[in-house]
Amino acid sequence: MKTVNIGLLGLGNIGTGTYKTLEMNRKLIQEDSRVDLKITKILERDQDLDRGIEVKPEQFTTDPQEIFKDPDISIVIELLGGMELSTQLMLDAMNHGKHVVTANKAAVAANYHLLMETAKKNNVELLFEASVGGGIPILNAISTVLRANEFEEILGILNGTTNYIMTQMTEHGLAYEDVLKTAQEKGFAEPDPTADVEGIDVANKLSLLMALAFNEYVAPEEIPTRGITQVTGEDIQKARDKHCKIKLVAQATKKNGHLTYSVKPMELDETHPLASVSNEFNAVFVRGNAVDELMFYGKGAGPLPTGSAIMGDVLEIAKRI
Amino acid sequence: MKTVNIGLLGLGNIGTGTYKTLEMNRKLIQEDSRVDLKITKILERDQDLDRGIEVKPEQFTTDPQEIFKDPDISIVIELLGGMELSTQLMLDAMNHGKHVVTANKAAVAANYHLLMETAKKNNVELLFEASVGGGIPILNAISTVLRANEFEEILGILNGTTNYIMTQMTEHGLAYEDVLKTAQEKGFAEPDPTADVEGIDVANKLSLLMALAFNEYVAPEEIPTRGITQVTGEDIQKARDKHCKIKLVAQATKKNGHLTYSVKPMELDETHPLASVSNEFNAVFVRGNAVDELMFYGKGAGPLPTGSAIMGDVLEIAKRI
Repeated sequence: MKTVNIGLLGLGNIGTGTYKTLEMNRKLIQEDSRVDLKITKILERDQDLDRGIEVKPEQFTTDPQEIFKDPDISIVIELLGGMELSTQLMLDAMNHGKHVVTANKAAVAANYHLLMETAKKNNVELLFEASVGGGIPILNAISTVLRANEFEEILGILNGTTNYIMTQMTEHGLAYEDVLKTAQEKGFAEPDPTADVEGIDVANKLSLLMALAFNEYVAPEEIPTRGITQVTGEDIQKARDKHCKIKLVAQATKKNGHLTYSVKPMELDETHPLASVSNEFNAVFVRGNAVDELMFYGKGAGPLPTGSAIMGDVLEIAKRI
Repeated sequence: MKTVNIGLLGLGNIGTGTYKTLEMNRKLIQEDSRVDLKITKILERDQDLDRGIEVKPEQFTTDPQEIFKDPDISIVIELLGGMELSTQLMLDAMNHGKHVVTANKAAVAANYHLLMETAKKNNVELLFEASVGGGIPILNAISTVLRANEFEEILGILNGTTNYIMTQMTEHGLAYEDVLKTAQEKGFAEPDPTADVEGIDVANKLSLLMALAFNEYVAPEEIPTRGITQVTGEDIQKARDKHCKIKLVAQATKKNGHLTYSVKPMELDETHPLASVSNEFNAVFVRGNAVDELMFYGKGAGPLPTGSAIMGDVLEIAKRI
């Protein structure tokens, strides 16, 4: 049995879900993949909070260098969120020869070339399955087993908050402001929902999908992006009259070697596989020149689904170490 | 650039689709994965048929040993169909140190242990993504990136012919016999449809899904199996009254360490992700203890979607050679 030690940056909601996913399934992973995965060090200031997991005091550190300079650690999981510090720490980890797994779509989409070149230079892997579609293993699929295809189109419902709002508006005839308020009360939407409702979060995810599917990096701010704040009940009714549903859709289409892309509310025919994706669920629709239509559907967020994607990346790297 | 030579057993419908998939995307695969995949030898008696592909006469052989004893060939693709001869040839190929990729669900499900042990003994890989769900990369997902989950349930619509029949019966109120006849005329159903309509094909696929997801092999004939031949318009109407649709579903559930399984027509609530999978499409619904619900949807058959799955397996093996 091979032991692979892991350093974890951040023990918030997703960090705790990732820790739980590993604890819950450690034995199965050992039996199955002959790898013993151990989170040996955790960068986290708040060491006293009861998270419902067992962490020994000596596992905690407040100094990232203690993780990067530990020769026994091969993989660093970055779950701090934010942009500058997390990017700097990912670069630092790779420059110390650590593989990196992250769920941080904003940081990877903003610094894609720098991060990928740093990974290449240090001969380490940088994987970020959890950053697009939560638990849905879409990045792995388009990077590996679907690679004998030329991709022609990607359509995604990639943000649970906005899909929840659109679903509630459509099914119950509610106004945008009212649904948003309820979603915020239930914790489905952030107190400041801008990144979600204006489509910024989705643009980050589309940037990563395009980089992997089409080998073409487009910065998120270069993607024409319109959120859902202007969608009215009247728009939804007009769509319904045409047997359509309005969804916030990330779209990338490659035709004659030319890539076009956008994030915007789109009318989808009721028979389209994406039209029945409701509430907090995410889905990615892919068309390849051999495989034709595929759709991947699942939970786009949540500590355990995200933990599943993170540990999936970790396991793939661990098997190759 | 690494060159990997391939021997192909059988140039029928699926063999031709696989050949076309590679020819169509060869350059992309080269640029992308730095692997040059070449089908250098083809076992096929009918060498004169115009298949719309360019094959040089010297690529053809009628002697499988010419492929197995060729030291330049690393991967053998088995697309002969049938059972005994194809199993014997897969074993023979592996005993000659060749990796094997196949779409043959019946042969792999019937001889699972023997084939897997032979692969292990010879330190080669045996992959069969194309045998379940056509182009849908479900076997890869449950064998790799989802491996940090304990699987709790798998539900699949795994046969395009029966799903087409059930969809037509449901949407147009047609009788089973009438839809089957039309499907046969259109080439969607075999002249002898027994393996499809009696659920035998689906039982083979469920056997493979369970072996990979639960590490538990159940022979297809041990799976309680009922096809769609007894489903009446009255059954469909009764289901509709309960807001349900009847689908031929392969089900495997693991609870408290105990696996239960069946293939049978099931009433699915209209809101279930599988309920909207229509006509010739296939889909697999998976629940894992971390990732929660996932669904994979796509074309369950056809030369190019199947070719995509086969070349995906070939590419994964080629990268590891």
